[in-house]
Amino acid sequence: MKRRNFLTGAGMAAGAAALAGGVAKPAIAQERLEWKMVTSWPKGLPGLGTGAERLAERITKASDGRLTVKVFAAGELVPATGCFDAVAQGSAEMGHDASNYHIDRLPAAGFYCSVPMGLTAGELNGWVYFGGGQELWDELYAPFNVKPFLAGNTGTQMGGWFRREINRISDLKGLKFRTVGHGAQVLARLGVTIVPLPSNEIFASLQSGVIDGAEWVGPYNDLSLGFYKITKLYYWPGFQEPGGAVQCMINKGKFEALPDELRQIVAACCTAENDMMLAEFNGRSPAALASLINEHGVEIRQFPRDVLAALGVASGEVMQELFDTGDELTRRIATSYFRYRQDAMRYTKISEAAFTAARSMRFDFPKG
Amino acid sequence: MKRRNFLTGAGMAAGAAALAGGVAKPAIAQERLEWKMVTSWPKGLPGLGTGAERLAERITKASDGRLTVKVFAAGELVPATGCFDAVAQGSAEMGHDASNYHIDRLPAAGFYCSVPMGLTAGELNGWVYFGGGQELWDELYAPFNVKPFLAGNTGTQMGGWFRREINRISDLKGLKFRTVGHGAQVLARLGVTIVPLPSNEIFASLQSGVIDGAEWVGPYNDLSLGFYKITKLYYWPGFQEPGGAVQCMINKGKFEALPDELRQIVAACCTAENDMMLAEFNGRSPAALASLINEHGVEIRQFPRDVLAALGVASGEVMQELFDTGDELTRRIATSYFRYRQDAMRYTKISEAAFTAARSMRFDFPKG
Repeated sequence: MKRRNFLTGAGMAAGAAALAGGVAKPAIAQERLEWKMVTSWPKGLPGLGTGAERLAERITKASDGRLTVKVFAAGELVPATGCFDAVAQGSAEMGHDASNYHIDRLPAAGFYCSVPMGLTAGELNGWVYFGGGQELWDELYAPFNVKPFLAGNTGTQMGGWFRREINRISDLKGLKFRTVGHGAQVLARLGVTIVPLPSNEIFASLQSGVIDGAEWVGPYNDLSLGFYKITKLYYWPGFQEPGGAVQCMINKGKFEALPDELRQIVAACCTAENDMMLAEFNGRSPAALASLINEHGVEIRQFPRDVLAALGVASGEVMQELFDTGDELTRRIATSYFRYRQDAMRYTKISEAAFTAARSMRFDFPKG
Repeated sequence: MKRRNFLTGAGMAAGAAALAGGVAKPAIAQERLEWKMVTSWPKGLPGLGTGAERLAERITKASDGRLTVKVFAAGELVPATGCFDAVAQGSAEMGHDASNYHIDRLPAAGFYCSVPMGLTAGELNGWVYFGGGQELWDELYAPFNVKPFLAGNTGTQMGGWFRREINRISDLKGLKFRTVGHGAQVLARLGVTIVPLPSNEIFASLQSGVIDGAEWVGPYNDLSLGFYKITKLYYWPGFQEPGGAVQCMINKGKFEALPDELRQIVAACCTAENDMMLAEFNGRSPAALASLINEHGVEIRQFPRDVLAALGVASGEVMQELFDTGDELTRRIATSYFRYRQDAMRYTKISEAAFTAARSMRFDFPKG
């Protein structure tokens, strides 16, 4: 139905209902809204950019165009890190980015993306939806007039690309490395010089030697950004973002003014995208990894055990400092997260982690 | 808005639009539909039953009541295993169960729940949404007039409750054990006598000695079913269902007759519930496990390595036989699944599995 016809029909329907003594819907329920969604992603970036597009399209279609969402790539309306402010001020109704871009202002926001040695994607969803995480998140963003939803996840990220080998802890010292979030603070403790760069500046900086290494996401994204053309050394696992969540921020006033069924549609579509984006990373990364190894000669290397142990120790210190220096709300959020993490670690160890270990044993299984 | 007022308004709107030369929506777009969702779950069963209720409520609210879904517990309209047929025949428009209840008729349906030593929940989503799994699933169910969606997951299940210790492979011989799906065929190869029982018959059968052991799901569900009152031996990991998916089946004719925005709402709500249910299991299981151990004296035991290895060998044999004896479509589905599994295993090993192993190293981390 075209906009013009819809408005005509709706206007007459309201009039007819009033004449008949029926209850007309509030005007906004029949309005066609056009919302802007600003994002931190280059247009079409696999997983992240495609996820934002999919979310916008789903809301538009499920609402039959009553709420039409238009996506803006990083830099089109606001810079990659400007989404939170744009939504808070209402210059965009929606935003799609990672909460750990905002930890300088809101340290506890990092829990809603991923913290070093923290929760996996599945565990994070458990905490946010069923462990009290969402309510605390709402409280954290409410003073900024922002309503947050989980709306995607990259899964466990890789350790990153390095121009030289990491064989011992001292190899990290003086390394110029691109990363963001609380993981950056961990690496800084081990002598790494952090260079925070948006995705579209990493390749050139790695090529020119401005940085010695970089982590972005994982095989699916990293293949598309072409880092393998510069170095073949790709390290695992990523301690820094074990399940990097993506957030959909909505201007709270605009959200609350929606009729209930549109609020329900927005919430359902965010949660659907939370499932879908992780599936996109899980679905595409295995083949992307195979391509990196088989077609592009990439060598995947495990971080040495003592390097991982040192990263663990420093991660614990950074999290303790976050707690010790945090305000009351930060401490409540951290406490909730840390307590859940304790129990979740035990459960994951005997369930999914134990299963994947058992599946790795040697036995014949059809290869298809 | 009440049904009466809505119908009055809609009728007049259509008339008014026709008078004005506008394009009226098809009648069905303005109708209020009431759909029945039959399920395999006892009313309120944690995760599974609550998931079905949440899905129905979400569709009802997001559609503003235009599509109102009413949930029926197992046995209310049809038996626990009768949902597929009810949806196929159209006596219920929707059904919510596990596809591995139907492998006697459709062996390949098992891939859409979980197969022994198969994919985890995250990997399965990757294959279904982005690896060609959904298209093959649609093809598998189309002759029955059923459209399937993923609509929940239990995550990795536990190995189960045993009335006596499992110390060696021979301890499985002659054991009477409750399980279903392809995992049952694996255990049968090792001498286990399989007793397939619905959830509400397990407790009494375990108590009376009709069975010597049972696997249902995991801590969150199993705590509520009270198995710890009968035996304290709880084994891990579950090789049989590494990520037990729940399906939402929709009568295909009824689904295709919906206006596009309602089809979009149904799809979005199923995908949202796919995310939400796994989060419920992930969110609640850690505390449920702690309760089983700390309050109910349950002993969690790892299956011995040679038992897991034997289960792996038998799992491979069962999957090979499924492929060898399958019809053309079964073989195409199996081939797609097995190929994805190969690449996914390598990716999972260096990402989430390697991360959780690193996180398990000894270092201080705040406990909250």
